[in-house]
Amino acid sequence: MNAQAQMNQQGKKPKTAITPTREENFPEWYQQVIKAADLAENAPVRGCMVIKPYGFALWENVQRALDDMIKEEDVQNAYFPLLIPLSFISREAEHVDGFAKECAVVTHHRLEKGPEGGLVPAAGAQLEEPFIIRPTSETIIGDSMAKWVQSYRDLPLKLNQWCNVMRWELRTRMFLRTSEFLWQEGHNAFATPEEANEDARKMLEVYQKLYRDWMAMPGIPGEKTADERFPGADHSYTYESMMQDGKALQACTSHNLGQNFSKSFGIQYQGEDGQTHHAYTTSWGLSTRSIGGLIMTHSDDDGLIMPPKVAPHQVAIIPVLRDDSGKATVIEFCRKLKESLKEKGVRAFLDESDARTPDKMWGSIKKGIPVRVEVGAREVEEGTVTWVRRDIGRDSKTSGTVDAFINEVPNLLAQVHQALYERAETFTRENVTDVSGLDEIKQFYAAGGFGFVRADKAVLDDPGLEAVQKEFSITSRCLPFEDDGQKVIIGKSY
Amino acid sequence: MNAQAQMNQQGKKPKTAITPTREENFPEWYQQVIKAADLAENAPVRGCMVIKPYGFALWENVQRALDDMIKEEDVQNAYFPLLIPLSFISREAEHVDGFAKECAVVTHHRLEKGPEGGLVPAAGAQLEEPFIIRPTSETIIGDSMAKWVQSYRDLPLKLNQWCNVMRWELRTRMFLRTSEFLWQEGHNAFATPEEANEDARKMLEVYQKLYRDWMAMPGIPGEKTADERFPGADHSYTYESMMQDGKALQACTSHNLGQNFSKSFGIQYQGEDGQTHHAYTTSWGLSTRSIGGLIMTHSDDDGLIMPPKVAPHQVAIIPVLRDDSGKATVIEFCRKLKESLKEKGVRAFLDESDARTPDKMWGSIKKGIPVRVEVGAREVEEGTVTWVRRDIGRDSKTSGTVDAFINEVPNLLAQVHQALYERAETFTRENVTDVSGLDEIKQFYAAGGFGFVRADKAVLDDPGLEAVQKEFSITSRCLPFEDDGQKVIIGKSY
Repeated sequence: MNAQAQMNQQGKKPKTAITPTREENFPEWYQQVIKAADLAENAPVRGCMVIKPYGFALWENVQRALDDMIKEEDVQNAYFPLLIPLSFISREAEHVDGFAKECAVVTHHRLEKGPEGGLVPAAGAQLEEPFIIRPTSETIIGDSMAKWVQSYRDLPLKLNQWCNVMRWELRTRMFLRTSEFLWQEGHNAFATPEEANEDARKMLEVYQKLYRDWMAMPGIPGEKTADERFPGADHSYTYESMMQDGKALQACTSHNLGQNFSKSFGIQYQGEDGQTHHAYTTSWGLSTRSIGGLIMTHSDDDGLIMPPKVAPHQVAIIPVLRDDSGKATVIEFCRKLKESLKEKGVRAFLDESDARTPDKMWGSIKKGIPVRVEVGAREVEEGTVTWVRRDIGRDSKTSGTVDAFINEVPNLLAQVHQALYERAETFTRENVTDVSGLDEIKQFYAAGGFGFVRADKAVLDDPGLEAVQKEFSITSRCLPFEDDGQKVIIGKSY
Repeated sequence: MNAQAQMNQQGKKPKTAITPTREENFPEWYQQVIKAADLAENAPVRGCMVIKPYGFALWENVQRALDDMIKEEDVQNAYFPLLIPLSFISREAEHVDGFAKECAVVTHHRLEKGPEGGLVPAAGAQLEEPFIIRPTSETIIGDSMAKWVQSYRDLPLKLNQWCNVMRWELRTRMFLRTSEFLWQEGHNAFATPEEANEDARKMLEVYQKLYRDWMAMPGIPGEKTADERFPGADHSYTYESMMQDGKALQACTSHNLGQNFSKSFGIQYQGEDGQTHHAYTTSWGLSTRSIGGLIMTHSDDDGLIMPPKVAPHQVAIIPVLRDDSGKATVIEFCRKLKESLKEKGVRAFLDESDARTPDKMWGSIKKGIPVRVEVGAREVEEGTVTWVRRDIGRDSKTSGTVDAFINEVPNLLAQVHQALYERAETFTRENVTDVSGLDEIKQFYAAGGFGFVRADKAVLDDPGLEAVQKEFSITSRCLPFEDDGQKVIIGKSY
C-alpha cells in the first residue's frame, strides 16, 4: 500500500517521523530517510558520499551474502588496478563512447607550491599518457585475460573483484547515482558463445536470489533493448525493480559481451582442434545502488525498514526507564537478553545511550530495525517483555515471557521478510499495466498513470516511440523473460 | 637458518625449485617466488600490480581475521571518498610535506578526441579545484569527524575503512611498494591524550596478534624515532619484522596524532565541563605489504611457505596416477577425502588437472601449501595415504590410514604454524647484535654485518650518525618497547 492509499484509508494525514512524506515529495523523503537512519551523507567531494557505519554495515551484509554466492559459482576474487591507460579504454569503440564523457582523468603525479601559495599540479610531473579512474574494468581485466588464456584448458576463467569505481555524474543522489560507488564486477571468459550466455543468465539468477532471499526485493528479470545495452555488449540482462513512486531501478546487470572485448584485447586460446579462437566474455555487477533500491522499496513515512537478513541490527532492545531507581536491574536484564539472542545467532542492539525512552523507540523505528523489544522495571519483575514488528507497528504489539520471545524471534524475522517481499511483490504486480500500443502508452502517462506499462515488443519499431519517451521521460526497461522476449516493459526510471 | 647456513651445513648447493636462490639474489628470488606461486604480477599501469586469485585469497584470509579483531575493539567500518580536495591535504603542514610529492592528481572530468585522433583530457572539462587520489585519509575523515563530534557523548569515535590508496612511487616492487595498494585505515577520536595513546598502543598489539597468531611472523614492537614518524603524528608505533636477508620490514604502524589533525580540521567537543576542547586522534593501518613480509619471512628456495591459518589451501591432495586404469577410483577417493577435510573445517585443494604427477607435487610446493597428501592406486586399495609437511619436506613423510590422517591434520597445521614462527623468531633473535655506539655500528656494517644492531638511544644524538646511515643505507627502525625506549634498533629496510 503506498502513502496515498494509506492516507485515503485512514481519512486523515497521519503524523509521521519523516517529513515530507512519500506522497508529498518522494525524492526529498528519500534523502530524509537516509539522514534519519544515519546511513550516509553527502561528501565535501562533488557527487560523492560518505557511507556512515550503519549504512556500511548494511552493505557489508549484502556483500558477504553475495560474495558467498559468487564463490559457490567457482568464481575467484582478484584485484586489478584502479587506473586505466587511455589507450586501453579506446580499444572498444562502443565502450569508449559510453564512458569517455564521464570519467576522472589523472594527469599529474606530484603537487607543488603554486604562485599564490596554495598547491597546484607540478608542471614537471605531467604524465606522458594520462590515466582514467576505472568506470568499469572490462579493458584492464581484458588485458590480463589475454595473457592468462592460452589454451582451452585455461577456460572457463571466472574472476570477480570488489572495488570502487568512478563515473563523473552531473546529477547525483546518495546510493542511487554517485560519482564514486562501490560494487563487485565479475569478468569471465569462455570457449563457446553458449557457455558465455549461460553464465550471463545464471549470474542474473544469482542476483535475483540475493534480492529475493536477502533483501526482500522483487523485480522483473529480462533483457535490455538495444538502446539500453551496456556499451560493448551483445546482450545485457537486468533485474528491474519497481520503487514505491512507480519508477524502475535497474538493480544489477549481467552482460554477454560476445567476442567484442576478446577481439579488442586479443583474448585467444588454442582449441582442442589445434586452431586459435577468440574467447567469449561476460561481465556482471551489483553496486551500492542496491542499497538505494532497498530503501525506496521498503521504507515508509516513519523511515527505513530493514529486511531482516541484511539488517545490521535485527532486534532493538529498548530499556524503558522511568527514573534512575530501577535502572541497573533493567540494564542488566537487557544485557542478558542481548547475550541470549546473540547465542541464537540474532544480531541484537541494546540502546544504552542517555537518550529519552521515546527517542530511543523512534530511533529504532527510523533505523528500520525489524523487531523492537521493550523492557521496563515491571517487565523485569514479571520476567516478561513486549515486542513490536517494525513493518506493522503497534498493531503487532505482543507480550510474553523472555523465553517465549527468544524462541519467537526467528519466526518474527522470517515473517517480516516474507511480509516485506509480498507487499513489494503485490505492489509491483498491481502497477504493471498492459497496453496495446503506442497510443495507449501515451494516454496512460498523459493521464498521470502510475508504474510500468507492458506492450507488445513491436512498439519498439514504432517511429513515434522516441517522441513519446522524451515527452514522458520514459524508457524501455526490459523484455521480460516470462514473456519470452515478446513484450517490453516501459516506465520512468532512476 | 638462512640459505647461506643451510648450504654450508649440507656442504653443497642444493637443487631448488626457485632460481636464483635467496643466497644468489634475494630480490630476484622474491619475484620468482611470487611468480611460481601465481600470487600476483606487474600491471600495465606503471608501479601497479594485479593481485591474482591465489594471492587475493591469501589477502582475504588476512583481512577476515583482522576485520574480526578490529570489530572486537568496537571499531565500526565506514567508507569515505577516494578523492581528496587539495585544500584538505594542505591543512596539516607536515602531512602535506609528506605526501604532496607522490600523489596522483585528477584535473579533468571528461575525455575528448584529440587532434591526432586519440583521446585527450577535454579542455572544457578542467576541474576548478583538482583532487588527489587518497594516499591516506586523515584529512577527509577529519573533515567528517569535525561534523560528527559535538559533545563528549560522541566520543570515542572509532572508525575503520578497507580501501585502495595511491602513492606515486619511483621504485616499486610487488606487494612491498606499489603505487596503488590495499589496506585498512583506522581513524579514531578521543576526549583525552591518555585514551588516544592507549588506543594507538592497543591497536599495535592487535596487529602483533594478527602477525603472531595468523601469519606466524615475529617482529620488534616499538616507537619510531622523530625522523621516521608519520607526517603529522606525535608518536608512531611500529612492528619491525626481520626478513631473511636481514632487512627490516615496517609491517604496520599505529599513530598517536595528538591534536594536530583535530586542530587543523576543527574536531572539537563540548566537555562535561561545558567548555569546548579539541579531540585527540589516532590512525593505524596494515596493508598488502604484509603479504610481501609473509613471503620474505617464510619462503625457501623451493618457493612459498604459507602459514596454515591464512593459507588459501591448507592441504593439497595429489592423485598419483601411473596410468588411466585406476584413475576413476583414485579421483573418487580423493574427492571423498576432500569432503571429509572440509567437514572438519580444513581448506583442502584437490588437483584434478591434466598435469603430470611430479608437476602437481612441485606445484603444491611452490604454492606453499602447508601439508601435501599423496593418494595412489595402492593407497586406495589399502585405505592409506602418505603425507608431507611443506616446511620440512621429505623428512616428514608419514603414512597411515585415512582416518589417522584426517585426525592428524589439525595437529599438523598447528605444528607447521609453530615451527614457522619459531624458526623466524630464532632467526630474528640471533641476528640482532648489541653495539656500544656509532663506531661499532660502522664497524659492524663495514664488515658486512647481517641483520639489525641495537644501541643505546644516545646514539641518535651523535652528529656523525647521519653520515653512517647514508654510507650503509641504514635507518633507525624503532625504540623497542622491551627496552623501555632506552635502546634503538638500526638496520637496512624495505
